[in-house]
Formats: sequence, structure tokens, C-alpha cells
Amino acid sequence: MKIIVIGATGTIGSAVADALAGRGHDVVRAARSHGDQRVDIESAESIARMYEAVGSFDAVVCAAGRASFKPLEELSEEDFHLGLHSKLMGQVNVVRLGLARVADGGSFTLTSGVLAGEPVPGSAAFSLTNAAVEAFAHAAALEMPRRVRVNVVSPPWVSETLEAMGRSGSGGLPAASVAQAYVESVEGGRNGATIDARAFR
Amino acid sequence: MKIIVIGATGTIGSAVADALAGRGHDVVRAARSHGDQRVDIESAESIARMYEAVGSFDAVVCAAGRASFKPLEELSEEDFHLGLHSKLMGQVNVVRLGLARVADGGSFTLTSGVLAGEPVPGSAAFSLTNAAVEAFAHAAALEMPRRVRVNVVSPPWVSETLEAMGRSGSGGLPAASVAQAYVESVEGGRNGATIDARAFR
Repeated sequence: MKIIVIGATGTIGSAVADALAGRGHDVVRAARSHGDQRVDIESAESIARMYEAVGSFDAVVCAAGRASFKPLEELSEEDFHLGLHSKLMGQVNVVRLGLARVADGGSFTLTSGVLAGEPVPGSAAFSLTNAAVEAFAHAAALEMPRRVRVNVVSPPWVSETLEAMGRSGSGGLPAASVAQAYVESVEGGRNGATIDARAFR
Repeated sequence: MKIIVIGATGTIGSAVADALAGRGHDVVRAARSHGDQRVDIESAESIARMYEAVGSFDAVVCAAGRASFKPLEELSEEDFHLGLHSKLMGQVNVVRLGLARVADGGSFTLTSGVLAGEPVPGSAAFSLTNAAVEAFAHAAALEMPRRVRVNVVSPPWVSETLEAMGRSGSGGLPAASVAQAYVESVEGGRNGATIDARAFR
């Protein structure tokens, strides 16, 4: 399959791109500043240009998008909008703008996070954004044409991210394990699912 | 208790205001164009003015906010933004801007809808918005100061709304029953809960 991985230079995205390439797929690594293809999901025009440049494809994985993590009383309206504009509408637009171009029986795999349903202090904007991504995929799956599927992978803390923050990676899941949830979404038959990456521990 | 009901001229809001007034509470009926107090939740300035005018209060119920219901392929970016700006951020701002003013042990009660977790074709923007409202309340509840609580009521189709659309009201729940879910949120002890109004059938 020809698979576009958006956010392919990130911790999760690079592990997903490696896992899919290792399984023999033709992977287009897309990211804001490096890789095979430039794309910024915060711009609908940039997403449209990416699809135009890539041409036909079988699947898209999106592991990109930002949101704010701050105590509720410090979250500004702009902090909420970051998640809504970037991680939520960026991923909604990856589906909306790719729908006419994805191959019959193809798929979209988006990224949320376990904070969607398991909030912690400071996660109000993050949890809201992740839950909205999941609800979008759940609903949009009912309207996919031509056997196209759409799922969301919900990753926990990633070991490499924790280590980059100077913490122990043992509290998280290695990126290579998280990547298996994306492989399941792309190669399996699920539609409208939220796939908890902790199942691939 | 002194309780602000936002959207008090709507089908659900008027039933909630009546139910709370019938239980002896001092109800401030707030709405865009009628009632005791003008407020448009799509404007943070309008919400701030309402709180300034009302002064101290014990609880807020919000039964206001718009979102788009359309087939996925017809939903424009503006359609998604309507729900995000109005029903989602409008209600987030009702909490954010009221937090410093609500009485100790007071409460905020927001409105989602059963489409959050039970999508149908056409509900992608609506479901996303409702799920985000629920996740916000769930997360924000962890950070409420001074024993303040925040819940969401999830109403199904309301009988009076169905009848206004020329359909049979028997497929819905009467607004007076839906209102009991809001009474439960305001008078009970729950925090961070999504209260399914169908439990009050």
C-alpha cells in the first residue's frame, strides 16, 4: 500500500513510518520541515497541496497536532483554540480533504491520547481536543464512501518522550509498540474505532 | 439558591428555569433576546457583562449553543467552527469566566447531547462538539476550587422539538423530564459527571 504518514519526523510518526516500511509498504514521510513531503496540518491549503503532490494513495496516518497543557485557571481562550485549530481541525481536514482522493477500501488513522477519557489536572484543553478527535472519527466512519475506514489511535505517554523530559521511560510505552496500534488500524478491518495503544504493550 | 439559567427562552432552558423556580430557587433567566438578563455565549465579553450584572450566584445552568448537522461531505470548515465557537467554547467560557464569582460549593451545569457517543449520519460536527463539552467538564472537575462542581446533562431528542418539526413527540423525552436531569446536577453532589437525561424518563 502507498501510505502517507503525517508527522513522520516526530517520536510516534517516525516509529509508525518505520513499522509500515518494514512491512513492505510504500511510505510517504510528510512533516512540517523535513521528509519526503512538506505539510502543516494547521493550514487547509497546505494539506490540499500535499494531496495534490502525492497523487493516489491507499492510507493516511496522522501523528501531528498541538494542544496546550496548563492548569485550568491559566488556560486562555488562545490555549483552547490551539488544540481546536491544530490537533482537532487539522486532523478533521486531513480526512475531509483526502476523502475524494483515497483509494477504494483505504483508510485514515488519526491520533488522540488517553487523556481523552482519563483526564488529569491541567488536561482540560488537551482532553477536550482528544475526545473531539475520537467523536469525529466515530461519527465520520458512518459516512465513509467506497469501503473507506477511519480510526483513531489513542497513545499513552511514550517512553522516548518521557526520557526526553528527563524522566524514566518505564512509565510509558515504547514508540515501536505504539506504532503497532497504527499498523492494526491500517491493515485491519476496523472502522470508527478508538484503538488504545496500551493493548500493544 | 440563586441560579442563572442561560438559554432560558429555549425549549430545554425554559423547562429547567420553571423546574428550578418551582423548587423555590431564585432563578435569573438569561437569553440572547429576552428574559431577565441578556447574554450571548458566543461572545466572551457578553458572558463577562452578564456575570458583572448578576453579581453573586450559586449555580449556572447553560442550555444554549449552536452546532451544524449536515452530511459529512457538505460540512464546511465554517460548519465545524460554529459548534466549536458556540456550543463548545461558549460553554467553556461560561465556566472559565464564572469560576471566580460562583459561591463556595456552587455548580456549573452544561449541555451536550446523546449524539456525543451515539453518532448518526450527519452528526460528525455535532458529535465532536458534544463529546468535547463532556470531556471538558470531566477534566475541569478535577480542578474546581472551593467545592465547586461542574457537570454536563446529555439530553436525547426532546418531544416538544420533534413536535415543532412536525414529527411525533413520542420518539423523544418531554422537556419537563429532561429538566429533572439539570435539577439533579444542581441540587445533587455529582462532579465531573455526564448525566444522561433518559434516566429521568
